[in-house]
Amino acid sequence: MAAYLVGVDVGGTTTKIGIFPQGERAIAAWEIPTRKFEEIDYIWEDIASAIFAKAEELKIGKEELKAVGVGLPGPIRDDGFLPRCVNLGMGACHPADLLSKALGGIPVAAGNDANVAALGEVYYGAAKGYQDAVVFTLGTGVGGGIILKGRIVAGNRGLGGEVGHMVVNPDEEAVCNCGNRGCLEQYASATGIVRIAHKFLKETDKASSLRGLEDFSCKTVCDEAKAGDELALDTLEVFGKYLGIAVAHTVLTVDPDIIILGGGVTRAGQILIDVTEKYMKEFTHLTNEHVPIVIATLGNDAGIYGSAALAASLLDQ
Amino acid sequence: MAAYLVGVDVGGTTTKIGIFPQGERAIAAWEIPTRKFEEIDYIWEDIASAIFAKAEELKIGKEELKAVGVGLPGPIRDDGFLPRCVNLGMGACHPADLLSKALGGIPVAAGNDANVAALGEVYYGAAKGYQDAVVFTLGTGVGGGIILKGRIVAGNRGLGGEVGHMVVNPDEEAVCNCGNRGCLEQYASATGIVRIAHKFLKETDKASSLRGLEDFSCKTVCDEAKAGDELALDTLEVFGKYLGIAVAHTVLTVDPDIIILGGGVTRAGQILIDVTEKYMKEFTHLTNEHVPIVIATLGNDAGIYGSAALAASLLDQ
Repeated sequence: MAAYLVGVDVGGTTTKIGIFPQGERAIAAWEIPTRKFEEIDYIWEDIASAIFAKAEELKIGKEELKAVGVGLPGPIRDDGFLPRCVNLGMGACHPADLLSKALGGIPVAAGNDANVAALGEVYYGAAKGYQDAVVFTLGTGVGGGIILKGRIVAGNRGLGGEVGHMVVNPDEEAVCNCGNRGCLEQYASATGIVRIAHKFLKETDKASSLRGLEDFSCKTVCDEAKAGDELALDTLEVFGKYLGIAVAHTVLTVDPDIIILGGGVTRAGQILIDVTEKYMKEFTHLTNEHVPIVIATLGNDAGIYGSAALAASLLDQ
Repeated sequence: MAAYLVGVDVGGTTTKIGIFPQGERAIAAWEIPTRKFEEIDYIWEDIASAIFAKAEELKIGKEELKAVGVGLPGPIRDDGFLPRCVNLGMGACHPADLLSKALGGIPVAAGNDANVAALGEVYYGAAKGYQDAVVFTLGTGVGGGIILKGRIVAGNRGLGGEVGHMVVNPDEEAVCNCGNRGCLEQYASATGIVRIAHKFLKETDKASSLRGLEDFSCKTVCDEAKAGDELALDTLEVFGKYLGIAVAHTVLTVDPDIIILGGGVTRAGQILIDVTEKYMKEFTHLTNEHVPIVIATLGNDAGIYGSAALAASLLDQ
């Protein structure tokens, strides 16, 4: 009898699911719509039905599905408790227990989606072969995950890896989405990078190909920086300074084997690593040995891969 | 046959040693001089002889000494390797192996002294009963330790828990002992607190009982703050702001069960907790649930207690 793991990544619009022969990469990956708010109670049955239907299609028996992992966009604690999930309209619950029940008792482990994606990069992606990694996910916002000894650090309040809201600039006056001021997210997210470029355009007279554009994206700022545009380069210096501080903080606390940068912003590539490394070295003055910083490799699949790794951890116990 | 653990805390001047019946508090604790620099090779034999002599005195047989833990003032990595220990003039080595050899094969585990002291507070002190804790040791400098799942987070380069050199104020102009600028140590150590008070005396005209004193200690600043001196209170606000940021960083990365403040500075008591908590809450805006902050209880004995806990971990394996 073969053994399969299932990885589930619940997003605000769609839920991705992958089926993995144990120890191997996904043999099937697909999406279903995420039911939420007034329909939230259906979410577990939807996922269970989708898994069983695909298993049947692949001629995998129910008894061959050994464990399931699920990532959710909320603060799941070390003990599996989720106080609430605002994005889905989900109240306090133990998601793993609910999904396990819908699956007729297959063991389930649950984690925060960003933490689970970080776990995916450690078991299948950019940090394969490492045990301790910190992931910064630079998208519209900034999330992350901390993996030590191959396990997610979820934390007492589910705040493990919430690196986007570390206050890296206590003197900032602009307000973050979270209501605080000076969070990493204000400098290292796609929206943060665009915000800083606009600030430089407004506050300086520097010539720039960004000047006069009514609207521009993070990608445009990065492209112009690569083309040598000084104002765009200044913008990436601000990005690198504050991300470098945040990376340094994780080095001086958990000192991981490797740092991974993921999320849409990292499509800009090496220029982001270079500027972050420069400042990280400055802010970890205490040592001449520096942590490697690399770009994530799994993209949007990190969630299902990480969930499969979470599922696998249930079988190790 | 009874089982005993030994805790060893190697300092720059003296080495403390404690003997612990397994699962109990120390039944003997004493000090020997630390040999270092040109005499560094004698250090392991000195410790071994001292342990055996005391065991004989206590009528404990060698075979009843089950495991030894040792804390050293250097960056000991997860794998037990110490690249160098500047304070002792010790070169690259595996301290646990060397001490075990001197002890005729008794199993030994080694750790960084600040990390080991943190472990002591978790197993025997202020965080007894908790699994995940972050300790900030506020002395002449600032050290610390991170304990997750009851184990030290030592890190890839032995930088785990080096919280004193997190850059909490990237705009600082004064230089830290480490050569960087804006480290926590510049605000939260005894010398840091005195430095800030002097800065306020120089840069403001505020009346203060500290004004005119040629020299004053951290204790005096804290005492004057408690007596209502405004300039001393301003000084503690700076302390609290930057320590609060550092505490918040650890909450948004490893999210521990409890934060412990140790070291000589904490003799000032509750006033330090209050000002740190105020800022920690501000800088963990993301949550309404806050980590408790408490003062360490083991004082200078934390090292031998933590080493005994480290020794105990060898027997669990």
